[in-house]
Amino acid sequence: MKLISYRYQNQNSYGALQGDRVVDLRAVFGARAADLKSLIAADLLGEAAKAAAATTETLALTDVALLPVIPNPGKIVCVGLNYGDHVRETGREITEKPTLFLRVAESQVAHGEDIVLPPESSRLDYEGEIAIVISTGGRRIAEADAWGHIAGYACYNDGSIRDWQTATPQWTAGKNFWRTGGFGPWMVTRDEIADDRVMTLVTRLNGQEMQRTTTDKLIHSIPRQIAHISAFMPLAPGDVIVTGTPGGVGAKRTPPVWMKAGDVVEVEVDAIGILRNGVRAE
Amino acid sequence: MKLISYRYQNQNSYGALQGDRVVDLRAVFGARAADLKSLIAADLLGEAAKAAAATTETLALTDVALLPVIPNPGKIVCVGLNYGDHVRETGREITEKPTLFLRVAESQVAHGEDIVLPPESSRLDYEGEIAIVISTGGRRIAEADAWGHIAGYACYNDGSIRDWQTATPQWTAGKNFWRTGGFGPWMVTRDEIADDRVMTLVTRLNGQEMQRTTTDKLIHSIPRQIAHISAFMPLAPGDVIVTGTPGGVGAKRTPPVWMKAGDVVEVEVDAIGILRNGVRAE
Repeated sequence: MKLISYRYQNQNSYGALQGDRVVDLRAVFGARAADLKSLIAADLLGEAAKAAAATTETLALTDVALLPVIPNPGKIVCVGLNYGDHVRETGREITEKPTLFLRVAESQVAHGEDIVLPPESSRLDYEGEIAIVISTGGRRIAEADAWGHIAGYACYNDGSIRDWQTATPQWTAGKNFWRTGGFGPWMVTRDEIADDRVMTLVTRLNGQEMQRTTTDKLIHSIPRQIAHISAFMPLAPGDVIVTGTPGGVGAKRTPPVWMKAGDVVEVEVDAIGILRNGVRAE
Repeated sequence: MKLISYRYQNQNSYGALQGDRVVDLRAVFGARAADLKSLIAADLLGEAAKAAAATTETLALTDVALLPVIPNPGKIVCVGLNYGDHVRETGREITEKPTLFLRVAESQVAHGEDIVLPPESSRLDYEGEIAIVISTGGRRIAEADAWGHIAGYACYNDGSIRDWQTATPQWTAGKNFWRTGGFGPWMVTRDEIADDRVMTLVTRLNGQEMQRTTTDKLIHSIPRQIAHISAFMPLAPGDVIVTGTPGGVGAKRTPPVWMKAGDVVEVEVDAIGILRNGVRAE
């Protein structure tokens, strides 16, 4: 099942996709689950699939405005330096523990929305990644149990303002500019992607391939990430983990490649779909 | 006015202090403001002061269980390396922009609650700080306007698990262990602390003074912090900015000082009060 968050007739809602049609799940669940995060928290994904199959009333996907897959995650935990070729291009070293940083919800945009280039910088870079959405939360989740805590997967563009990212020892500012991170287009539920499936991740800028990798190359695997993060903080339903970007970022090219107004950037994951965003100057 | 968030008879609430008595403001405002963050967002601090003055029905402060001042902030932005003596003891350099990292709400505890030493580490350290709570939000707030975006002030203990903090280039894990950050005891509203007042900040561990500074020594002043952070992310009512710790942290002493079960740590700010937390092993 593919699940989306969207806005329609001035109201936020969420739904299930049937091809290019949308089943409004907020209409189905009402107060039981006001948004996709609440649906996941209430353990209603199975019921949602049944409801979607039974519903004949649908909206056209083209008639709704997508929101970031989870518009209001409690936490967005990003894993840095998690593919060998990216670690090498940054000149850093692999660490035993994953390198983590946090994004805030306001830094996100939906599929089809423009990533925003702020006047404070011209160094806007892409980072294609795979995001996972947590289903059942927990603390100190064992690696062996980690897959069972995943609700589903989405594409993510961990858009970064490089000069602000590297101006201090911590990357927070450069990773949290307003509307720089793409999250979409939908969440594919875990039952549709085998836990051991090797996914292929590709980033394209204006049609040109800039990054390509496969998830078997992750330094810290998805179960390892969940185990590590939950070792120190409780994970909750709807929390998002952004699993890392491969080599080929714009900042490390010669000459560097920066995204500019009018560009189109795509993050494609074979098992998920394509996240596409334009770029506009603020 | 001093405002607290608390739990009483299995319900979360918030209130105003009158000496050692509490006026239940949730009972006053009902659906208009379900928590302190909502009160601030609805611009009801003035009305709250009037309501508190007019109410004769109060609870004893000793009968309520305090919560972190804002239990559910949208963002907790912490400023690192913001006093010269602390920058020097870490061997780092002063940067033109403030160094920032984020904490999550689950990493916080209230005044009177125990900070939790996890089994994953023995390197639990204190960092006494002053927290500000945002009133009116905004983007690109000018330094000259910044004071007007402050709802009030509280004490903060930016508790840190040092070996996890320094195991990777980013401090996220060490700054976000569950229940390591003290936030309290209350928020003193801005009208009670002149904007140009030099506040004195002291941290004591088991009664012994470990840190002492004054806010005129901040490298990046409070208005500068608000301007910088809001340059890249919109600030919202109830957001928390933790303004930095001075020299004297346990990790940089010879020999290092780590907090252990049974310790009592206090962060005192003369204009605010004393945040006191015990330490317990998980």
